[in-house]
Amino acid sequence: MAKGLTSRATDYSQWYNELVIKADLAENSAVRGCMVIKPYGYSIWEKMQAALDAMFKRTGHSNAYFPLFIPKSFFTKEASHVEGFAKECAVVTHYRLKNDPNGKGIIVDETAKLEEELIVRPTSETIIWNTYKGWIQSYRDLPILVNQWANVVRWEMRTRLFLRTAEFLWQEGHTAHATAQEAIDETNTMLDVYAEFAENFMALPVIKGRKTENERFAGAVDTLCIEALMQDGKALQCGTSHFLGQNFAKAFDVKFTSKDGNLEHVWATSWGVSTRLVGALIMAHSDDNGLVLPPKLAPLQAVIVPIYKTDEEYKKVGDAARSVKSALEAKGISVKFDDRETHKPGWKFAEYELKGVPVRIAIGPNDVANGTVEIARRDTLEKKLYPAGQAAETVASLLDEIQQNLYDRALKFRQENTHQVDSYDEFRKIIDGKAGFVSAHWDGTAETEQKIKEETKATIRCIPFDGEATPGLCIYSGKPSKERVLFAKAY
Amino acid sequence: MAKGLTSRATDYSQWYNELVIKADLAENSAVRGCMVIKPYGYSIWEKMQAALDAMFKRTGHSNAYFPLFIPKSFFTKEASHVEGFAKECAVVTHYRLKNDPNGKGIIVDETAKLEEELIVRPTSETIIWNTYKGWIQSYRDLPILVNQWANVVRWEMRTRLFLRTAEFLWQEGHTAHATAQEAIDETNTMLDVYAEFAENFMALPVIKGRKTENERFAGAVDTLCIEALMQDGKALQCGTSHFLGQNFAKAFDVKFTSKDGNLEHVWATSWGVSTRLVGALIMAHSDDNGLVLPPKLAPLQAVIVPIYKTDEEYKKVGDAARSVKSALEAKGISVKFDDRETHKPGWKFAEYELKGVPVRIAIGPNDVANGTVEIARRDTLEKKLYPAGQAAETVASLLDEIQQNLYDRALKFRQENTHQVDSYDEFRKIIDGKAGFVSAHWDGTAETEQKIKEETKATIRCIPFDGEATPGLCIYSGKPSKERVLFAKAY
Repeated sequence: MAKGLTSRATDYSQWYNELVIKADLAENSAVRGCMVIKPYGYSIWEKMQAALDAMFKRTGHSNAYFPLFIPKSFFTKEASHVEGFAKECAVVTHYRLKNDPNGKGIIVDETAKLEEELIVRPTSETIIWNTYKGWIQSYRDLPILVNQWANVVRWEMRTRLFLRTAEFLWQEGHTAHATAQEAIDETNTMLDVYAEFAENFMALPVIKGRKTENERFAGAVDTLCIEALMQDGKALQCGTSHFLGQNFAKAFDVKFTSKDGNLEHVWATSWGVSTRLVGALIMAHSDDNGLVLPPKLAPLQAVIVPIYKTDEEYKKVGDAARSVKSALEAKGISVKFDDRETHKPGWKFAEYELKGVPVRIAIGPNDVANGTVEIARRDTLEKKLYPAGQAAETVASLLDEIQQNLYDRALKFRQENTHQVDSYDEFRKIIDGKAGFVSAHWDGTAETEQKIKEETKATIRCIPFDGEATPGLCIYSGKPSKERVLFAKAY
Repeated sequence: MAKGLTSRATDYSQWYNELVIKADLAENSAVRGCMVIKPYGYSIWEKMQAALDAMFKRTGHSNAYFPLFIPKSFFTKEASHVEGFAKECAVVTHYRLKNDPNGKGIIVDETAKLEEELIVRPTSETIIWNTYKGWIQSYRDLPILVNQWANVVRWEMRTRLFLRTAEFLWQEGHTAHATAQEAIDETNTMLDVYAEFAENFMALPVIKGRKTENERFAGAVDTLCIEALMQDGKALQCGTSHFLGQNFAKAFDVKFTSKDGNLEHVWATSWGVSTRLVGALIMAHSDDNGLVLPPKLAPLQAVIVPIYKTDEEYKKVGDAARSVKSALEAKGISVKFDDRETHKPGWKFAEYELKGVPVRIAIGPNDVANGTVEIARRDTLEKKLYPAGQAAETVASLLDEIQQNLYDRALKFRQENTHQVDSYDEFRKIIDGKAGFVSAHWDGTAETEQKIKEETKATIRCIPFDGEATPGLCIYSGKPSKERVLFAKAY
């Protein structure tokens, strides 16, 4: 166990909070609820961005940038959107400060009051659809496939690094289409992109499904999502893709002339993932020794630690290390040779374990003599000797193996912690115990959903796409149910 | 001349404003002074980001992210900084809206007033140095070499797309060092990075120099800058790199234990470039037909336009075009085959000229018969026939040629528009006329600088590093001057 790191078994929540700090990922700032993302944490986000951005572009999207501020009145234009987003938010009311006439620093200049308050964007549907109005006249202007990488602000009362912060970084896709079907297809395509990213890059198995009306995005006709299970049995929503129908086109009066010459409202989607994914990545794979990162998103994939006592030994070990480093780099593996003299090998081992570097290579005088290197993998903590000449091939295949192993392990965990239940007693026993996903029948009403939430804190995470569609009886009300839905306590 | 585009000679300012809109780069938004960066404009910024980010990383920097909001009191901690930055800015005073009891939409909830107002960051020195306090104890924690890509807000009264907007995108580097010399070296290194970027990627020759005290960054000991000349004879500051001394370390009480065991204040730098560079790029190279983009930053480097009348002709021309496209792509050239039937070749030619695509390839039935393609370069508008089999090599070398030609042209323009003067009469004649850079003697006082500015609108752009260091007499006051400085009217 890493020095001073609370174990998951002792207090999972505490373990997470400590790990984020100890691994230098992020910290709280002087501004309530806003985090500082430190270089190591930010480099994970950069890797996520690069992979996602390439996938967005492959599916035909371009990036653009819209204003940080949204006029207050925009939020009132879409009836359900205002309820969901225009409440807990940062409001800009003035545009100037001045010296305090009493000499006590600076104060707001009351003469510089905005006629209409500006809201720091909590999401950008309104400002973007107000903009699209000017971009769309004819079917020839459609589709618009645009994404934005941006910061957004939601004034959360209880915040946690990465998982829930007042300001966070995200991407928000906003597309405009000539037909409902095209928009629905886009909604599905982007959910698939998210699922592929979660599974292939984050090594995180996800369940694709549809939100209930209660849990739907404010302003959406339909919200699709991917849900993952964390090691404490709680679910975490990893991405959402919304079919917005014509709601925003109607709110902002965006119409186009169809091929047939009719004037019609435009169809819309929006979809997003955020820095929350960094939290999911930590929670899904890491252990009591620290971070465990999937090689595809690890800022550093391998580290070489030299072991020596004398200068003469260092010379030999250093030469061997540099040759291994070159071989790894030639294979496109990101690798660091940590030859700092200020720290002992044992300290370095613990440090790179804490930081989740997937592969560690140690080289000592005996290794040089025998032509070997010791390679340790972070996921299983196994160590083995390999011929130095095969180090690059070994590490390359180990990285693939680790990526796959993390996925398999997370999938096994999810399978072991997904329960099909047919009674409310069983349901409560699981939810109050080890938790996990619970597949159960539900009568389809918001009332039952709400009651179960109040009594157990579990919510319907989604109606899974590949769920069991056989009818049954609602575990709570006993009324008929079309299909099973997936419950869990959630972040 | 592009249809409807005002010529530079008629009204340079109008030409710029129209071009930004017509070329789909950006537009004004519903929020005063904030722009929407459209996909084509944003893709230029993305190319700039990619090149700069790689250069930052090569020079040892990592990215991180700091809060959007800064507590008001932070600005008062550094005396000169507050004057420069804490005045015209967006002030967040409340964190909640509520339904208007009179049913008129939503209003600010007066009970949700922040105890201390938050400023939307106009620059991040204060919040970052407040954070660094927690990161730095010993010389072992130094240097810190961090950069942030972010949005910032300065409440400008007169805004212009890209050149001066209330919100803009930028990067801001913030580094911490154990010695003054190390910080000064960093300041110089980053100025060199900016100059290299401007010259090699933007094809924009720049003059490196030092700002006068008047023009210095608020809170800096020394501000270095790169200055470029636009086609209307006005200068544009393209990047700044500041040596901050110990000012922010003192303001935020950031000390470290040196190797000798002394407690000392940390030394700082900051440096930044912004979306303003997109404006500089447009102004430096473009012409009355539209954008002219340097190939290294062009979102699309080449376009293929098919010319045909019959389906049979299209089949042959299309096959030839696709084969040329593959050959170009194999060379890493970004190329589009525009076979839209909705637009005529002439329309497409004008469109890609307007968009500044560096190379245009036209292929018609005669070309197919003769095994040729017509290649036009955007910078000179020259067209020539080439053997189809050599299209890729030809385009690759043309792209290099265009990149170099744009630089050479801009350098020649700057040389022709840089004047050495020894009297105020001469000075005024040039500044009031064609403008350009004027190299003149100045007595070194803020008063003289201010007078000249008031009388002519010209400012001292910089004291050039490679300027003429021979002494002389100030053109305004006649007092002794150590060296010539560079004046210009500026954006």
